[in-house]
Amino acid sequence: MNDLTPITVARGDGIGPEIMDAVLRVLQAAGARLAPEFIDIGEKVYLAGNSAGIAPSAWDSLRTTRVFLKAPITTPQGGGYKSLNVTVRKTLGLYANVRPCVAYAPFVATHFPKMDVVIVRENEEDLYAGIEHRQTDEVYQCLKLITRPGCEKIVRYAFAYARAHGRKKVTCMTKDNIMKMSDGLFHKVFDEIRAEYPDIATEHYIIDIGAARLATRPEVFDVIVTLNLYGDIISDIAAEVAGGVGLGGSANIGEHVAMFEAIHGSAPDIAGKDMANPSGLLLSAVMMLVHIGQPEVATRIHNAWLATLEDGVHTPDLQGEHTCQPVGTQAFADGVIARLGALPQRFKVANYANDNAAPALVIPRYVRQAPAKKELVGVDVFVHAPQGTADFLAGQLSALVTPAFELQMITNRGVKVWPGGFPETFCTDHWRCRFVPRLPARTVSNVDVIALMQALAQRQIDFIKTEHLCTFNDERGYALGQGQ
Amino acid sequence: MNDLTPITVARGDGIGPEIMDAVLRVLQAAGARLAPEFIDIGEKVYLAGNSAGIAPSAWDSLRTTRVFLKAPITTPQGGGYKSLNVTVRKTLGLYANVRPCVAYAPFVATHFPKMDVVIVRENEEDLYAGIEHRQTDEVYQCLKLITRPGCEKIVRYAFAYARAHGRKKVTCMTKDNIMKMSDGLFHKVFDEIRAEYPDIATEHYIIDIGAARLATRPEVFDVIVTLNLYGDIISDIAAEVAGGVGLGGSANIGEHVAMFEAIHGSAPDIAGKDMANPSGLLLSAVMMLVHIGQPEVATRIHNAWLATLEDGVHTPDLQGEHTCQPVGTQAFADGVIARLGALPQRFKVANYANDNAAPALVIPRYVRQAPAKKELVGVDVFVHAPQGTADFLAGQLSALVTPAFELQMITNRGVKVWPGGFPETFCTDHWRCRFVPRLPARTVSNVDVIALMQALAQRQIDFIKTEHLCTFNDERGYALGQGQ
Repeated sequence: MNDLTPITVARGDGIGPEIMDAVLRVLQAAGARLAPEFIDIGEKVYLAGNSAGIAPSAWDSLRTTRVFLKAPITTPQGGGYKSLNVTVRKTLGLYANVRPCVAYAPFVATHFPKMDVVIVRENEEDLYAGIEHRQTDEVYQCLKLITRPGCEKIVRYAFAYARAHGRKKVTCMTKDNIMKMSDGLFHKVFDEIRAEYPDIATEHYIIDIGAARLATRPEVFDVIVTLNLYGDIISDIAAEVAGGVGLGGSANIGEHVAMFEAIHGSAPDIAGKDMANPSGLLLSAVMMLVHIGQPEVATRIHNAWLATLEDGVHTPDLQGEHTCQPVGTQAFADGVIARLGALPQRFKVANYANDNAAPALVIPRYVRQAPAKKELVGVDVFVHAPQGTADFLAGQLSALVTPAFELQMITNRGVKVWPGGFPETFCTDHWRCRFVPRLPARTVSNVDVIALMQALAQRQIDFIKTEHLCTFNDERGYALGQGQ
Repeated sequence: MNDLTPITVARGDGIGPEIMDAVLRVLQAAGARLAPEFIDIGEKVYLAGNSAGIAPSAWDSLRTTRVFLKAPITTPQGGGYKSLNVTVRKTLGLYANVRPCVAYAPFVATHFPKMDVVIVRENEEDLYAGIEHRQTDEVYQCLKLITRPGCEKIVRYAFAYARAHGRKKVTCMTKDNIMKMSDGLFHKVFDEIRAEYPDIATEHYIIDIGAARLATRPEVFDVIVTLNLYGDIISDIAAEVAGGVGLGGSANIGEHVAMFEAIHGSAPDIAGKDMANPSGLLLSAVMMLVHIGQPEVATRIHNAWLATLEDGVHTPDLQGEHTCQPVGTQAFADGVIARLGALPQRFKVANYANDNAAPALVIPRYVRQAPAKKELVGVDVFVHAPQGTADFLAGQLSALVTPAFELQMITNRGVKVWPGGFPETFCTDHWRCRFVPRLPARTVSNVDVIALMQALAQRQIDFIKTEHLCTFNDERGYALGQGQ
């Protein structure tokens, strides 16, 4: 065969090697056209001094094959080891985390036998950018960054996925009643892009209500698209209410590279005992086959796996009243292989062949919009001042000789404390001081910001952070203070 | 009686007036020693032009009585009306949101009949400070602020609450594997304060796992303390898995003022029909009675309410196979009044009298620590640059004439892109440029930061934000870049 698709395979740690062997045997028996390249990742690589658990040569393989089938790894305790997944995901731009969460009752216990949800989680930005600063003695900050390209890519992916896989509805979850600009952007982009998919139903939930609904009525959802942090939380909720993380597969999709892995860990306590269930990794491999354009092989494997489950061929984690044949890891793989070509009787038959799913993963590239007309209209200066009150600080700031700017308000933890604060408002040592042009008509520039900072420095006022206030096409690009 | 406690009461909108009437009748019949002052809040007040739904005179009552029993309100659609709850909470420093989530099976359907969880949610800070900036064409930012006083107050409250109410365990939930400094502070403060409560068991969950566990095994939790956003999400999950928001009460506790309300809304569709269940507001009033030092009245009402539920006296929302006497709002209140003095047979008997709970609400005031030795060791400058690459920008920045600082790295959405980036990393128009002293031994100051900004301005480099890099007592007060 000349059409073998190169893929990078990592056998991982703990139960990784044995479940990967089982999965590769099923892939081969099913006729998957693959040329695996093996790389080492995980514990040994960390301990050899690679702080992210992956050696430079392994990057070359990933960047060449662009497809990564990954077994779970063990991160050594202590020592400042960095998450391999976060490193791979961010370095290679794997912007979409895709997790189907399906109930397999009665073989897996769940309160929600009809559940069949796919969570599409933004994977690169939000609070996970890891930009944190201690700003004063008392105050720590983490930046939440939400970008238009980030929102467009993930929302487009969710709709493309839904259409390719015959899904009917995409639900967006945000907290835009509080974070009107950042989460508001995500919701706005969702509204823009859904207009291109009139065949797909849409809805929006505030994340707290949405998460609660997912926990109690998961069968009402189909595809859910959401921001990184919310997606992290709800994908764990969805996996648990479906019956646990044991059978879950996942994909991490980027423009260049895609990574497929089980959602469970390396379970070192049962490693080497032929006890582990290879289903999570196998279902990840099914997603991989669809991704690389071998949907007919994906269909054969998925149906054989469903038939194996139905026939009561169960690894120890699933054994119970519905088990006919208790098996270990490798015998389970043999059971799937023996059923290649069979269809499930009880579960819905998988059929990727008509789904046209592979092109769904090639979403249009992000097209940068023309720059808006941006105008500087003020600056928020954050001051570290452990002593004194808002009124005292306002007195100091109002006395500054700053030709361009004057003090408009002071907030503490977002609450306006000057002018007109309440004495009950608790204040930390961290004050956000908003300056606006003294003469509203005057144009201000970075030179004026610098002059303001010079005036602050001359008075020994300890500024520790600035945020420019801009308008974009005459629209305010900053939130008002609470109480302003 | 000379010992009447003044409280402020708002009858609210929708079903508010009728459930408040029912609750006040129960309070009176039970012998609560109260002197209610009535204020108007909500729809009419919004429409009269008060953008937060509360008139100035009402603030005077709240600040005098310092106890607020509040019915649900309706916020008019559109028009930029601000959340009354957010305004009251932040202005009066109501730092703790307390929500008991209890299963009342079989009268309320739930998968978890043993559930009895109290969620203690930080209520003032986190991403809810509302500080958002659009920084470039593509990038929006929301600040997450976590403070030591905020963490100390809420964690102390949770432990004091647990001890006063005879609770056995406090669970902390954070995402400190990702947000090591901000969520890390919360976890660190939890570890500090739990040492003062050796009689209370403790544990910590990463929020995604914790939320999933709460959705599937809520009976393993007792008291949960967490940050604002996570608390928002999990308190909705907990209410839903317990059986719904219908019976939930809540307290919002501050140093000066406390507010008590049901967690459901104003349900205008059933307003005025004598159909609403007053239980959520009644259980909030029970929390209020404990708070103001009338625990024996609280006990009588709570037990009578449990007995009423057990006797099958049910408003329409609860009617089913366990209902013996279908009733409306007022007849339900009559049922509770008729049972004052009775005890439940099936549910656990409430007993606040021995709980010493009121002092639990007077936690020690936050004591500011001595300032750390703070040293400026660099500055992150954020640049808006729609064109060009990281290498191009690095070339520009490295060529600046800045006596004190030199460029150390550039990140885009937190990923290091210079030096040594990958071409696969997707870049927005928003670059974080880290400058550190050119000579490591040199002391730098705000004057040097200003000189750097002047050099940037001279080269027309569009900086839009700065974050100082400091050490506190020689400990690094900023996160490294991903890949740094």
